[in-house]
Amino acid sequence: MPEIILSINAGSSSVKISVYKTPEDNSHVPTQLAEATIEGLTAPPARLKYERGDEKIKGKELENVKSQEDGFRYILDHLTKDKGLPELAQKEDIRFTCHRVVHGGDYPRSQVIDQETYHHIEELSDLAPLHNAPALTIVRAVTNILPHAKNIAYFDSSFHNTLPDYICTYPIDQGVAKKNKLRKYGFHGISYTFIVHAVSSYLKKPADQLNIIALHLGSGASACCIKGGKSLDTSMGLTPLAGLPGATRSGSIDPSLMFHFTHSAGKPSRSSSEKMHITEAEEILNKNSGWKSLTGTTDFGKISSSNREEDKLAFNIFVDRVLNYVAPYFTKLNGEVDALVFAGGIGERGDKLRQAVVQGVKCLGFALDEKKNGTPVESAVTNISASDAKYRTLVVQTDEQLEMARGVLVDKDRFVGKK
Amino acid sequence: MPEIILSINAGSSSVKISVYKTPEDNSHVPTQLAEATIEGLTAPPARLKYERGDEKIKGKELENVKSQEDGFRYILDHLTKDKGLPELAQKEDIRFTCHRVVHGGDYPRSQVIDQETYHHIEELSDLAPLHNAPALTIVRAVTNILPHAKNIAYFDSSFHNTLPDYICTYPIDQGVAKKNKLRKYGFHGISYTFIVHAVSSYLKKPADQLNIIALHLGSGASACCIKGGKSLDTSMGLTPLAGLPGATRSGSIDPSLMFHFTHSAGKPSRSSSEKMHITEAEEILNKNSGWKSLTGTTDFGKISSSNREEDKLAFNIFVDRVLNYVAPYFTKLNGEVDALVFAGGIGERGDKLRQAVVQGVKCLGFALDEKKNGTPVESAVTNISASDAKYRTLVVQTDEQLEMARGVLVDKDRFVGKK
Repeated sequence: MPEIILSINAGSSSVKISVYKTPEDNSHVPTQLAEATIEGLTAPPARLKYERGDEKIKGKELENVKSQEDGFRYILDHLTKDKGLPELAQKEDIRFTCHRVVHGGDYPRSQVIDQETYHHIEELSDLAPLHNAPALTIVRAVTNILPHAKNIAYFDSSFHNTLPDYICTYPIDQGVAKKNKLRKYGFHGISYTFIVHAVSSYLKKPADQLNIIALHLGSGASACCIKGGKSLDTSMGLTPLAGLPGATRSGSIDPSLMFHFTHSAGKPSRSSSEKMHITEAEEILNKNSGWKSLTGTTDFGKISSSNREEDKLAFNIFVDRVLNYVAPYFTKLNGEVDALVFAGGIGERGDKLRQAVVQGVKCLGFALDEKKNGTPVESAVTNISASDAKYRTLVVQTDEQLEMARGVLVDKDRFVGKK
Repeated sequence: MPEIILSINAGSSSVKISVYKTPEDNSHVPTQLAEATIEGLTAPPARLKYERGDEKIKGKELENVKSQEDGFRYILDHLTKDKGLPELAQKEDIRFTCHRVVHGGDYPRSQVIDQETYHHIEELSDLAPLHNAPALTIVRAVTNILPHAKNIAYFDSSFHNTLPDYICTYPIDQGVAKKNKLRKYGFHGISYTFIVHAVSSYLKKPADQLNIIALHLGSGASACCIKGGKSLDTSMGLTPLAGLPGATRSGSIDPSLMFHFTHSAGKPSRSSSEKMHITEAEEILNKNSGWKSLTGTTDFGKISSSNREEDKLAFNIFVDRVLNYVAPYFTKLNGEVDALVFAGGIGERGDKLRQAVVQGVKCLGFALDEKKNGTPVESAVTNISASDAKYRTLVVQTDEQLEMARGVLVDKDRFVGKK
């Protein structure tokens, strides 16, 4: 009998829940039944978006929904009451919940959340409190609300547990580094896992033979060098702050910069609490930097199509920093590249950005078909390369929710075997 | 009549002075007469190295030489008393002194040091106090000791004043960035200027048509993308800390790392003084990191030839980080590269490092002649490329002292015209 899987992605101001049912056969392909998102938790009124088949709700204003837990309860109530969703008539129908957790420390794969793992995730969240806090809030709530379901944590860092030592080691005091777990972890790994599966299926080439330069470009952006289906290098580091700039994130900067930006760089920020230690520098670099600080907007689409000097500057900075990863990943793959992949909101929709990036590595053998690049993508994988390009460029509609649900089907035995 | 130029390079624990005389003709080629170095100022006894023609002193222990000023006075005394150096019989024979200053802020070229420029250099040294302090100490001393000479500051940052806005702008609050002068400056510019001259002369190609991927690799290491003889991009940033790791420097790391390394990252370090503001984080990242922190030694030669795990790791980290700049600089030059240049102590002597770096960009068309690479270089420029390599690889014996002295000859009118 089909079982219900919820894939939950909690952001700092949003909760997104996708509802899947397991297949009747032994395949690893879950079927999506519905998707609900509540946005604006920190800027009330929150709003609901809901899709089930042809049923659509767009931006319904909600009262008294102010936290991730409120949001989760609201969506759960909505789902169980939706007559068009008989598979999920009561909360006991939910067998698995999947939680996207950004920082998973040394966890090499997903984990059933029990007291021990919850405690461990909480501990390692000290490394990236800004990023892990929303997921932890939801996990706590869900454990109470759905005591019969298996809660599974999927980590954005797990995909990168194959990074070699010379990539993931920082040249700093190794005693402190080991004690405080300071190394490159890398993130967006659920998306990169999806990309490997999607490209493997598209090219009909086994995942473990795939070499990909993958770009997950959204309000958070990263690059990944995938060799033989595994992460060889990635742009993010100890936390998602390192590497590429994002909507409100600086990306890599001179490590001494913040001490010249403010005298209180190391002091606790206003968002700090007993449970969450964040310095002023980390708050500024994660929340008040990036293209927002250059242009006033977090909307990269607007920036791309604008002619204002500050927008052009932000666009050019982003292109330049992306190119700083594409080229070395090409050489790390020794020029044996199956595809340059664009994914994430900007990767999917930013045709101008894609054009500029590919133009920047033209001398390596990449080229776009202008028409294909200009057409909105509709499939999971779209080839936008010029017919005479030496290397392939693809757009992948990454789906982290689906990737987690698929993970449940693949690893079911491991999850159910464990108390 | 020939005039005497002193080129002075003050490090944190050393002073190096090269003595030149101006040419009789109108060429821009100064003649070196002597060179003196005092090392170990912070680890007494200090030691003198001296060379004039065939005359050599190697490591003579000195008493009571404990500061850059002591060192300068000692060397000056030594030079004027050296009977084999009649051109410099009294300190009044010195017409110009050149000072290597690391951080020159927005100065696009060398400056005669008067009260105004001294004050300005002192002010901007707040951005890189660790790096500018030794030079400032010497400048103060020399102004008193040689009141009749023209003191000229050469800045390591000036060469990079051609960086485009999208390269030198950090995606951070632009109000603060402008007010606090926070941008990418870049360093090692005196060396890169030398490299452009040397390669131009070697290839008989005008400097303004040269495209070079230049690597200045020493205990401080950086990379520079030179397009049409000008700096297009470079690895160092606001300070020399960003980019590649060095002997005791971390290079670029996650900007949030230090707040997880120590709770007192933002507090003043022990070396801080009223004149010099350095946080604990900056002290750790500049002085207690890099390959010293990985291996226990600052000697990259030892690391390269060792089989210990930690040495191999440090070696591989350095190669990897260097490659992260070579590849994107190749694409920024659109594959139109006149030479990949190795310079600096490790660049000149590290044949194993050069081999590994070039191997890493083999797929772009670089290759070494193993024998040429294994032979110690003796000329200013040595071609070590394989005969069938698509692109040229050169080793350049960079000489910052000579470059400064040459600058005096080129810019003499500007310097003498100014009070």
